[in-house]
Amino acid sequence: MSEIFKKHISKFVQVSDDEFEEIKKFFDSKKVVKKENLLEEGEICRHHYFVLTGLLRKFFINEKGIEQTTEFAIETWWITDNFAYENQISTEFYIQAVEKSTVLYITQEKQEKLLEEFPAMERYFRFVYQRAYAAAQKRIQFLFSLSKEEFYLQAIRNHPEFVQRVPQYLIASYLGFTPEYLSEIRKRLLS
Amino acid sequence: MSEIFKKHISKFVQVSDDEFEEIKKFFDSKKVVKKENLLEEGEICRHHYFVLTGLLRKFFINEKGIEQTTEFAIETWWITDNFAYENQISTEFYIQAVEKSTVLYITQEKQEKLLEEFPAMERYFRFVYQRAYAAAQKRIQFLFSLSKEEFYLQAIRNHPEFVQRVPQYLIASYLGFTPEYLSEIRKRLLS
Repeated sequence: MSEIFKKHISKFVQVSDDEFEEIKKFFDSKKVVKKENLLEEGEICRHHYFVLTGLLRKFFINEKGIEQTTEFAIETWWITDNFAYENQISTEFYIQAVEKSTVLYITQEKQEKLLEEFPAMERYFRFVYQRAYAAAQKRIQFLFSLSKEEFYLQAIRNHPEFVQRVPQYLIASYLGFTPEYLSEIRKRLLS
Repeated sequence: MSEIFKKHISKFVQVSDDEFEEIKKFFDSKKVVKKENLLEEGEICRHHYFVLTGLLRKFFINEKGIEQTTEFAIETWWITDNFAYENQISTEFYIQAVEKSTVLYITQEKQEKLLEEFPAMERYFRFVYQRAYAAAQKRIQFLFSLSKEEFYLQAIRNHPEFVQRVPQYLIASYLGFTPEYLSEIRKRLLS
């Protein structure tokens, strides 16, 4: 199972088999069933998750009591509430399994140690954060520039694997509209 | 002037004077006057900017022809269109001086070399990207959860230095509303 993680690291940096055996020790793994929460609002955000199999989402409950999804994570993606994780403070987010999933996870303290001891992992995480940051900037741009309908079309175009895999009501939750509105858009697109 | 950069690096990693002399060689510096553009829509995004003095903003022109500001950068902040910079493709953004500013800048190619040659800089940039990513996630959360008025209040509370320093019409552009609407909110708050 950890082969998935090793393969992902190897995309960015070189790590020998022996080194990887040491790196692995910093992580624990966990299986979660569909709808199980890995993180809940109000908890200290202790872990950074790497998805080995399955699909997770991150959401918060807005002032209307509606779940607003802000992120998905499929295989080989990292997910956490980064601000709360770094500062070891309580989170406003939930992280929930959309499908039965297997994750690796690490604590903030162990991650710091890992990066100090393994410069290759420092480099690996620099790439991970750099890409995640670029993607978040793109998301902010789209939130300002695209209409809701364009946003949905963009999602279909750029991430067809998500749109097929994720239940419609969660896509609506990610795009920031009601399932009814999404259903209307879909009807309009099909006609 | 580069002392500002050295001091910033030292907040995260240790770099000797000799090392810093080598690191400095990867960068060029530039002065820009108020309203001067460092980057324009359609250009390949070649540089990553570090603000030594002054204030920059990043914006795109939306489909209504209005400048939508997505980021500001004051002293010791990094700014670029990260997606376009990493992939060396053309940008949809402008980076413009809000005040007379001095910046250090580096090309993507040189940055890659710098990080390969100086593990301390790999570590420094890992911190830079990690924090920037966490801040972008917070911004996405606020874009979904706060009303425009709350967003403005939050900006006053969390970044009073910006709100005082940045012209009102640019604050409006960052918050995604018209200068008239901002002026209305301000009147309401004062009354």
